Amino acid sequence: MANGAQAMLRTLLDAGVNVCFTNPGTSEMHFVAALDTAPEMRAILTLFEGVATGAADGYARMADKPASTLLHLGCGLGNGLANLHNARKGNVPVVNIVGDHATYHAQYDAPLQSDIETAARNVSRWVRTSRSTAALCQDVVDAVAAAKGPPGQVATLILPADVSWGEGGAPLPTSLPTSLPAQPPRAADDVIDKIARVLQAGGKNALLLGGRALREPALLAAARIAARSGARLYAEVFPARLERGAGLPHVERLAYLAEMASVQLAGLDNLILIDARAPVSFFAYPGKKSYLVPEGCTVHELASPRQDVVGSLEKLCVRLGADQVAPALQEAQRPGRPRGKLTAEKVCKAVGHLLPPNAIIVDEAQTSGTMLPMFTAGAPRHDVLALTGGAIGQALPAAVGAAIACPDRQVLALVGDGSAMYTFQALWTMARERLNVVSIIFNNKSYGILNVELERVGAQKAGPRAKSQLDLNSPGLDFVRLAEGMGVPAVRATTAEEFTAALERALATPGPHLIEAVVPSVFSGLKLRVLPYLLRSLGTLPEPVARALKRKLAP
Amino acid sequence: MANGAQAMLRTLLDAGVNVCFTNPGTSEMHFVAALDTAPEMRAILTLFEGVATGAADGYARMADKPASTLLHLGCGLGNGLANLHNARKGNVPVVNIVGDHATYHAQYDAPLQSDIETAARNVSRWVRTSRSTAALCQDVVDAVAAAKGPPGQVATLILPADVSWGEGGAPLPTSLPTSLPAQPPRAADDVIDKIARVLQAGGKNALLLGGRALREPALLAAARIAARSGARLYAEVFPARLERGAGLPHVERLAYLAEMASVQLAGLDNLILIDARAPVSFFAYPGKKSYLVPEGCTVHELASPRQDVVGSLEKLCVRLGADQVAPALQEAQRPGRPRGKLTAEKVCKAVGHLLPPNAIIVDEAQTSGTMLPMFTAGAPRHDVLALTGGAIGQALPAAVGAAIACPDRQVLALVGDGSAMYTFQALWTMARERLNVVSIIFNNKSYGILNVELERVGAQKAGPRAKSQLDLNSPGLDFVRLAEGMGVPAVRATTAEEFTAALERALATPGPHLIEAVVPSVFSGLKLRVLPYLLRSLGTLPEPVARALKRKLAP
Repeated sequence: MANGAQAMLRTLLDAGVNVCFTNPGTSEMHFVAALDTAPEMRAILTLFEGVATGAADGYARMADKPASTLLHLGCGLGNGLANLHNARKGNVPVVNIVGDHATYHAQYDAPLQSDIETAARNVSRWVRTSRSTAALCQDVVDAVAAAKGPPGQVATLILPADVSWGEGGAPLPTSLPTSLPAQPPRAADDVIDKIARVLQAGGKNALLLGGRALREPALLAAARIAARSGARLYAEVFPARLERGAGLPHVERLAYLAEMASVQLAGLDNLILIDARAPVSFFAYPGKKSYLVPEGCTVHELASPRQDVVGSLEKLCVRLGADQVAPALQEAQRPGRPRGKLTAEKVCKAVGHLLPPNAIIVDEAQTSGTMLPMFTAGAPRHDVLALTGGAIGQALPAAVGAAIACPDRQVLALVGDGSAMYTFQALWTMARERLNVVSIIFNNKSYGILNVELERVGAQKAGPRAKSQLDLNSPGLDFVRLAEGMGVPAVRATTAEEFTAALERALATPGPHLIEAVVPSVFSGLKLRVLPYLLRSLGTLPEPVARALKRKLAP
Repeated sequence: MANGAQAMLRTLLDAGVNVCFTNPGTSEMHFVAALDTAPEMRAILTLFEGVATGAADGYARMADKPASTLLHLGCGLGNGLANLHNARKGNVPVVNIVGDHATYHAQYDAPLQSDIETAARNVSRWVRTSRSTAALCQDVVDAVAAAKGPPGQVATLILPADVSWGEGGAPLPTSLPTSLPAQPPRAADDVIDKIARVLQAGGKNALLLGGRALREPALLAAARIAARSGARLYAEVFPARLERGAGLPHVERLAYLAEMASVQLAGLDNLILIDARAPVSFFAYPGKKSYLVPEGCTVHELASPRQDVVGSLEKLCVRLGADQVAPALQEAQRPGRPRGKLTAEKVCKAVGHLLPPNAIIVDEAQTSGTMLPMFTAGAPRHDVLALTGGAIGQALPAAVGAAIACPDRQVLALVGDGSAMYTFQALWTMARERLNVVSIIFNNKSYGILNVELERVGAQKAGPRAKSQLDLNSPGLDFVRLAEGMGVPAVRATTAEEFTAALERALATPGPHLIEAVVPSVFSGLKLRVLPYLLRSLGTLPEPVARALKRKLAP
């Protein structure tokens, strides 16, 4: 006879959930004790809940199935909310198991008592507090099913300590598929017909691909449609997972800066959404538009996140007679080895120069975000995981999860200095689990992006006290010592040669590594220095558009 | 004419709030820009929101008035929830300002859009989203008034970006008192009479002091009552702020371990609560009681957190004719200088040996928690701030806040290795602000307390996979490098001599310091090694009680 925790672990395993990112406390001790009865469950300890939830997010993006987390009451869940927000916005499946006081203990309002369900609802479409050991395994099955979707979502099961320690748990055999997704419906015939007619009519049209439409099968179908119809292909700004590189269709990501995204979208007659939402500005700015679809552009939805995006794209392909068309594929090409004083551009060049096949790039760095796509477009095939919900502190934890999901693939995390400090504890788990992650920290000694944002919101006349709020240079952060303090070998690079050599060594040596890339802020003197890169990262802007963009970006 | 942010800052200052712990993002840039119009507002940058909220908690405990925080949308608030939970449980006033998207932007469900009010309600008794620049300053006044209480509480004001940047803000002159508390009512005559008769009747009685009843005026009144009536004095397990040391009445804290608290409370006829709650077990355990008041003991409430605790105690004093009684005061005494291999006990001895007058001790370390009170009881007068809500990661941030509130006092933070890693980013703010904080990290290379809890929940047969979840030794954490990485000088001590010398140097040198105290886990082999300390920390247990306790603690 099993107790609740033992039966729960067995049911999770039967449902295909065999990884648990943990940060347990007293109320989770029976779950922890039960781990020895379920050796197939890989329990991965983290030092902070934001690492556990971010790792679960990164894991599910790569494994295409949920991991579970193990969190300690409402406060543990609170610490994990930011990265669960990222999972929620990316339609990524996660099963949270949040320990709680014993059911009979709640009445005493002990110190750690809080309203867990309310906190959970903020990020979870599915929330339940298990009421008895007998009901627990059905709760587990329901949680996993809810998480798997489609679309994937965060499901939170609250586990009172006495439900966990109670005897009489009976694992449920489950017929859940162990991998996402269950087969959802394809786009209806009339939708296909309407969109096909729009594309056949010509004009300036674009497909905006998001979510699961950024994997190879969908990309190939979209590229066939583009080749046949002349439509452009765009990817959403922050994809959960984008497959790209040599041999795959190239898709241009919409820019983070609304001013630039507006240029990308200018003049469109039709925008067709595939598992994506109509583009909006990341933030609002005084006097600037939030909704970025240009006037006169009609928005169509081919497939929502609840539909079969590949099937819908292929159906449209057939309707357009494009299913035998050869899609345009990215040619293999790499930038040269960079030289001289290190800059963010040269870091991106070195990554493009050295990126191994089948790498996973977790890219949270605003410093590199506008340049990396260009320099890695023709690198060997790889996946990019982006900051779906905008909650920083995601890259290092997500890199942990991606490396657990794909032990044979090299993971690179590109992170800004500010962002890295939210969940730096992830380094310890990388060391503990000996994960093949190279963490690259862009140390520009500031919240670089906020210098831009301070200008963009119209607060140009910022004084020294305001600017001090964006400064990370007094004292400067020493990421080499920080990494070594958690058992990860680390080096600092100030020249392109040092950086490239360090990256070569890191890629050649198993286990985690960190490289602190000391770079000037690309955001100071925005107009002079960055604009050329921004424009190049857009691909091939016609000169009048570039001029228009320059005018828009001028203060 | 001011914009919303400028008017808001002016109103905060007028209401006595002149410290803001910040971690801003784009939506807060107008608040940041406005800082240069309000130089009296001290804005203190943190690298993580949990540091900002924990600092606001520590600040208010010492300043007796709220600080504000500046947080970035729902995810920033989420990162700050755990330490706001501690403030909530300690009735500590905090004013959160949480930036949000512009009101018209919410409809687009941009990546960072989330339900901020719901997350805020989890910790805040008062929550409001400001609807217009014209209404903003009244919102600020209401938030500060709500935070001040009594009792103190967390108030969260959500500030949409367009309310912040809008023109037409008019600072409100405010007649709010700038310091807590407004004068609440004293205990009613009939309550005083009833409790006086109980105390006069003799028997075994105790006063349980919590909240504001642990400051000098209340302690003196309680000690007079004790001297006159023979009642014992207890303090709640985790006080928000306890004034103690030579020259003040000594009050024994209830033990964290329910088994020990039950021994402290055994045989009581009456328990009188003053700004405290009837004692309950921190966690529930199979087959053990949650409610710790012994059978046959009657609970009375002299004053709730909403009442005037000093006035109520003094009224009871007068009623008992105790107002001229000399209270028992703690004599000055310090432990000797410890020698030999470092242990947690010797760390506590060294702290007691060297503690400077008027120090502030933030004590989050379970490793030391049972021993420190004994070794510092006769040290010069000091304040102890404890983990009111049980959400770990509190001590380092609270030390930041306490040092900002009391720049002339030495702050010591005692933290376990596990706890320290939740909000270690606090070290950077200590360095940036050159705060006089000595952080002492007990590095026992494990979540030490959980080894006990694993036993206490009855999961004795834990196997290697369970035990691995409590292990922080692969890799070990190097707190010296971690501190140096954030600009704080640090040393490691493995002997009592090294530790004492390091503490002496740290206390003699301005600015932040960290000492990593490498100690064996006091929790392994609980019964053999710790029990004597636990018993001694209780003061003077009669031998039969000690024997009973030993039996209870046996597995």
